[in-house]
Amino acid sequence: MAVWPDIVRDLTDAGRHLDIPDVTKWLMKVLQYNVPCGGKNRALTVVEAYKSLSPPNQITEENLRLTRILGWCTELLQAFLLMVDDIQDHSEMRRNQPCWYLYNDIGLTAINDALMLEMCIYQLLKKHFKTKECYVNLLEQFLSVSLKTEMGQCLDLLSTNFGKKPNLDLFTMDRYNSIVKYKTGYYTFVLPATAAMSFAGITDPEMYRQAKTILLEMGHLFQVKDDYLDCYGSIEDIGKTGTDIAEGKCSWLIVVALQRATPEQKKIFEECYGQSDVEKVNRVKQLYQELGISNTYAIYEEETYNLLHTHIQQISRGLPHDLFLKLLNRTCRKIGRKD
Amino acid sequence: MAVWPDIVRDLTDAGRHLDIPDVTKWLMKVLQYNVPCGGKNRALTVVEAYKSLSPPNQITEENLRLTRILGWCTELLQAFLLMVDDIQDHSEMRRNQPCWYLYNDIGLTAINDALMLEMCIYQLLKKHFKTKECYVNLLEQFLSVSLKTEMGQCLDLLSTNFGKKPNLDLFTMDRYNSIVKYKTGYYTFVLPATAAMSFAGITDPEMYRQAKTILLEMGHLFQVKDDYLDCYGSIEDIGKTGTDIAEGKCSWLIVVALQRATPEQKKIFEECYGQSDVEKVNRVKQLYQELGISNTYAIYEEETYNLLHTHIQQISRGLPHDLFLKLLNRTCRKIGRKD
Repeated sequence: MAVWPDIVRDLTDAGRHLDIPDVTKWLMKVLQYNVPCGGKNRALTVVEAYKSLSPPNQITEENLRLTRILGWCTELLQAFLLMVDDIQDHSEMRRNQPCWYLYNDIGLTAINDALMLEMCIYQLLKKHFKTKECYVNLLEQFLSVSLKTEMGQCLDLLSTNFGKKPNLDLFTMDRYNSIVKYKTGYYTFVLPATAAMSFAGITDPEMYRQAKTILLEMGHLFQVKDDYLDCYGSIEDIGKTGTDIAEGKCSWLIVVALQRATPEQKKIFEECYGQSDVEKVNRVKQLYQELGISNTYAIYEEETYNLLHTHIQQISRGLPHDLFLKLLNRTCRKIGRKD
Repeated sequence: MAVWPDIVRDLTDAGRHLDIPDVTKWLMKVLQYNVPCGGKNRALTVVEAYKSLSPPNQITEENLRLTRILGWCTELLQAFLLMVDDIQDHSEMRRNQPCWYLYNDIGLTAINDALMLEMCIYQLLKKHFKTKECYVNLLEQFLSVSLKTEMGQCLDLLSTNFGKKPNLDLFTMDRYNSIVKYKTGYYTFVLPATAAMSFAGITDPEMYRQAKTILLEMGHLFQVKDDYLDCYGSIEDIGKTGTDIAEGKCSWLIVVALQRATPEQKKIFEECYGQSDVEKVNRVKQLYQELGISNTYAIYEEETYNLLHTHIQQISRGLPHDLFLKLLNRTCRKIGRKD
């Protein structure tokens, strides 16, 4: 948080030079409401990764400041993506406050606000990294991860049949894995770590490859946990009420449930999944219980967590195991069984 | 159009490598529906500018192919911006077909489709320009013009009071000029010309400054004409029915009308402007007629056109006058009085 006021000043100064003060004031509000109030997992990953990967003599105050700015760039990307997702998913709450598009009747204007946050990333990179060797790499990483995330979102939206009745035949584990990889894994884990690697001066492609493999595995566990909490977490846990069942999302829970449902149970899912009616949502939750999904989750979590531990030990290319263990423990803390 | 199939192949190949074929197929549809069917003014500007600015020995088949790809990048930006604007403005038609978000009940998913087109720009730039000296410049130009356009859109949306009753006291000519400069001028005129200048190897900042001044003037005339046609143009002229009055837009017509309205007429504007009720829209149009706005437009168009001619003659820094005259005649053709 220490550099956040500087970030706001940088971004609104740019606007001030353009002599459109109303926009500058508005942008300040958009930044303040949407960016700093999350868990800042992605920014922390950038900072931890840089500290762990950079040669000690390069960890200066100035480089740490730049690393924090890079961290905020990942948070801006996150804020942009969440604002747009919330509009597309008709969500109501985010981080314990109304979604931006519902705040003060802002409505679809919120799309443009999200787009401004997206472009703020590149303003910051230009201002602070233009003279660095990693500059073009950073630009390309943010841009290509944005496209991957949007492609994941596209696959997700195609699966929900644009918010109409979802076709449950599409809800296979393969499809789920692709959605998670593109929609979550790249921007939540791969980008923060590889941006820090770039800034730390790492150029060996094999190191990037090994990091990416582990990071995408972590992203998978992270998203499965997120899916679990959407259904079983309290509002305090997740800062919102879950909407995956009502929105007909291709969530880990429904995919596993469909794998083991009898034809009769599948019929009930067909009838009830993807509808906002509370009774139908509860019917789906009841079926999850009958199918023991919560227990399956606990087993999956335990096993995947242990597997990730093993994979981290197997990293061979000079990447510090500690960093990945720390990341794993911060982002994928075990929750065990909840019901 | 000759390179369009290559563009689609480039962009969908990228998706094919990611092994999410459903997204690739969908992206192909999004591209085909939204990108190639416009007037392609921006792409033509890129090509004309490159041909006119590049040293003759550099105008090879290969460089022309790259110039056309750069032209399509400006069309992708345009498609992205229009798709989002149409959602925010509740428009129904675009280029004589339903807006993408209304097509097959796509709805708000269209936001994500627009975002994919935006990121396609940077995929194309990376694929075709990464080894060129102008690469970073091109990235920065597209990114910073995107932010400027979104800031202009923000100012526009703030002026319409988020689609609620607009506050007509805000509709000054100064504010109108700022909206037009940021929302239209940069991406419609400045970007296509300066991207071509970069690719042609021009580095003199004074040449960019002189070009920008003229191009923003052209952007202004272009937008005033667009505002005029929104009210007075036929569906065939503009590929849609105008919505500026109903949406309460800060259009050139209302700004001029308010400048000369009596207190009584201003009261009628307050009552009727920014509401979808057909009678109220017609009352506004009737007042425009009483105030002779159409005639004022014809005079403004004539004078500005002539002034631009003069300014083009005054360009001193080696930029070809012909290029700007050609641009002026293609994009700001006089329409004169229409009613």
